[in-house]
Amino acid sequence: MKITDVHITPIAITDPPLLNAAGLHAPYALRTIIEIVTDDNIYGLGEVPGSVATTKALEEARAVLIGKDPFQLNAIQAGLHEHFGEEGAAARGDTPWDQRRIVHVYSAIEVACFDLMGKAVGRPVVDLLGGQARDRVDFSAYLFYKHEGAGGTLGFGTDPNATGWAAARQKAALDPAGVVAQAKAMCDAFGFKSIKLKGGVMPPDEEADAMMALQEAFGPDTPLRLDPNAIWSVETSIRIGKRLEGVLEYYEDPTRGQENMGAVGRAVNIPLATNMCTTSFANIPGSIQHHSEDIILSDHHFWGGLRASVELARICRTFGRGLSMHSNSHVGISLAAMAHLAAAIPNLTYACDTHYPWQSEEVVKGGRLQFDDGAVVISNEPGLGIELDRDALAKLHQQYIACGLTERNDAIEMQKVVPGWKFEATRW
Amino acid sequence: MKITDVHITPIAITDPPLLNAAGLHAPYALRTIIEIVTDDNIYGLGEVPGSVATTKALEEARAVLIGKDPFQLNAIQAGLHEHFGEEGAAARGDTPWDQRRIVHVYSAIEVACFDLMGKAVGRPVVDLLGGQARDRVDFSAYLFYKHEGAGGTLGFGTDPNATGWAAARQKAALDPAGVVAQAKAMCDAFGFKSIKLKGGVMPPDEEADAMMALQEAFGPDTPLRLDPNAIWSVETSIRIGKRLEGVLEYYEDPTRGQENMGAVGRAVNIPLATNMCTTSFANIPGSIQHHSEDIILSDHHFWGGLRASVELARICRTFGRGLSMHSNSHVGISLAAMAHLAAAIPNLTYACDTHYPWQSEEVVKGGRLQFDDGAVVISNEPGLGIELDRDALAKLHQQYIACGLTERNDAIEMQKVVPGWKFEATRW
Repeated sequence: MKITDVHITPIAITDPPLLNAAGLHAPYALRTIIEIVTDDNIYGLGEVPGSVATTKALEEARAVLIGKDPFQLNAIQAGLHEHFGEEGAAARGDTPWDQRRIVHVYSAIEVACFDLMGKAVGRPVVDLLGGQARDRVDFSAYLFYKHEGAGGTLGFGTDPNATGWAAARQKAALDPAGVVAQAKAMCDAFGFKSIKLKGGVMPPDEEADAMMALQEAFGPDTPLRLDPNAIWSVETSIRIGKRLEGVLEYYEDPTRGQENMGAVGRAVNIPLATNMCTTSFANIPGSIQHHSEDIILSDHHFWGGLRASVELARICRTFGRGLSMHSNSHVGISLAAMAHLAAAIPNLTYACDTHYPWQSEEVVKGGRLQFDDGAVVISNEPGLGIELDRDALAKLHQQYIACGLTERNDAIEMQKVVPGWKFEATRW
Repeated sequence: MKITDVHITPIAITDPPLLNAAGLHAPYALRTIIEIVTDDNIYGLGEVPGSVATTKALEEARAVLIGKDPFQLNAIQAGLHEHFGEEGAAARGDTPWDQRRIVHVYSAIEVACFDLMGKAVGRPVVDLLGGQARDRVDFSAYLFYKHEGAGGTLGFGTDPNATGWAAARQKAALDPAGVVAQAKAMCDAFGFKSIKLKGGVMPPDEEADAMMALQEAFGPDTPLRLDPNAIWSVETSIRIGKRLEGVLEYYEDPTRGQENMGAVGRAVNIPLATNMCTTSFANIPGSIQHHSEDIILSDHHFWGGLRASVELARICRTFGRGLSMHSNSHVGISLAAMAHLAAAIPNLTYACDTHYPWQSEEVVKGGRLQFDDGAVVISNEPGLGIELDRDALAKLHQQYIACGLTERNDAIEMQKVVPGWKFEATRW
């Protein structure tokens, strides 16, 4: 089996005006879809956060891939490292999303190769990663502070004909009551049993109030998480953390850097979680040294693929770290890959994050993947168990061209609403 | 694909009178061979160090395996843990060989499942572990102090008709000249480029003299290793280590325990290696804390299988540990598994240990596996690339029954030569 062709397609998907520490989501989120084709005429799919830089890097990677056997992941990775050079941990950046290029590129390619391998041998991807540790992968309700609006061409406008979650999704959520209403609508629609609020948006005490309102509304047995995306000082993190002891399941990246996280962890009796201070294998020694977190949020897009994520899981077991999963705005290829990965990891015991309810478009045949009582049920179909809807892909690619966005920049979007707004690495 | 049958066969293979810190090899080394059969009528092979306890545990594991799909390694492992309970690191024991039961059992089963998976999908095992990082796996010449003798029914006697390495293998090696002669004969016969001496047998300075004689004979570019199996004090380890700076590629387990190894490592300018103080994932935090070694000798029989060994490799990369591979007396199933594993690990950059040249019997069709200029060339045949010779297996099982050995006990053998001999955890 040899790779004969590689198709790389940047797409734009409608995204509502969601707020976070780095600003405001644009009306479209960018993803890049990779399709790898072999001489057996089967194809494998991968998906990663989109940007012109990532698309260009994937285009460059094509030359490394052509002629290779998709089972030869070590050779493919060696070829990519030879082409691009090794990438240090420093390039992650201060934004909530990871900005390293090579891990994105390798993740997209590796997932597509696993999809190919699974299709070639008639096995779901989970079976190539050790088999099912579980047959259902629980996801969490991922709440956002947001302005009114549906995103896309509607921007801050709404579709008056929308119903159910599609209607609720359009509403503003800028205070505890709005957050609780959003949570109820999302949990009703998808069956999620755990709830995460993307914080770092409102003054910290308001966000703590929102978490307490969620506990009040959902009861003490619903796991709750708050993620200020590292823009709180150590002092603020400790003060708010103290307020939220007994409220949060975990406290995600209240402050920036492993040393600071360690200081918060020693002072606050809530497990700390991260996808910001420990985001690569190069960060693990520092994580151990500083005990910067209790739970690592894996993300195969940023840790270098599915195998690397399984290896991360072993490191978590070895050092007594819990394991959960991080997400960005995405479509069904990433959701399927996340679910197969999570199903294969015995110690991934937390409900995973997903932005998926905020998106409405798809590139996979049959349209949007379904949640069953808050979980993705693992398919026994070969590979990722999905097929590419080429018409939908073409339409979302046209949307990418039409929208004019070339990379994610939440600050620019925020400045359209709040002139002069600037990102601050530590805001409160 | 479902497991329908499991055959567990203890065997005894002829082993010469090799010396080590724990005594003397018996005339036979014990291994247990597992054959797992599926409803597709294909079989997979595994091999582990033999003992009645291991054979009994594998027999118990049969009930966990029947009806399972060999791709469902997580479910199989969970079933085994449920049956046997989790096993702590403490049970390894002080002997040069690892005495934990569950890792043996799981390793044997997992290797057989990988063999099955490879055969089922028409791919070599290496391709199910990420593909070839290399197509040849270098092994090292594994020297022993030894008494004259061929082992087996000949015991300390020799076969006068033996030629080449089979003749050289019979000779005593009890001083530097004998060690050098053994090294020359073994390197000539197999093409090995690295040399390891099993130490902990003679007074430490004599062993250092032997290493210096090897350097004199083979030149400064031949990597040399000495393994006293942890029976030297910290002081002795440092004193001898100082003598061997510039002589050794690595210094394996001179002393016992992570703290002591760390102390030796700080004092001696040679990389330390271990398969005694850091032998399980539970030992990794202590390894980091004490910097007990620079190189970990993996062994899939003791780390819990092939996947666990790949995960260990990631931990080694993450914490700046080198990676090599440990061995016991074994036949071709283990050699094939070791080679496929080593071929799949990019950072396994040291020549691996193997006792294989000391054995003369086989259970695989075609007889003894060959080394090509010191390396095992990775086969592209499905699975491990070997087939079971059932007549040979039956013969070696009869030999097991006839020899009367039930577990490895090098002290008892030693006492036959040196009455009253006792193992000492720290001898010098």
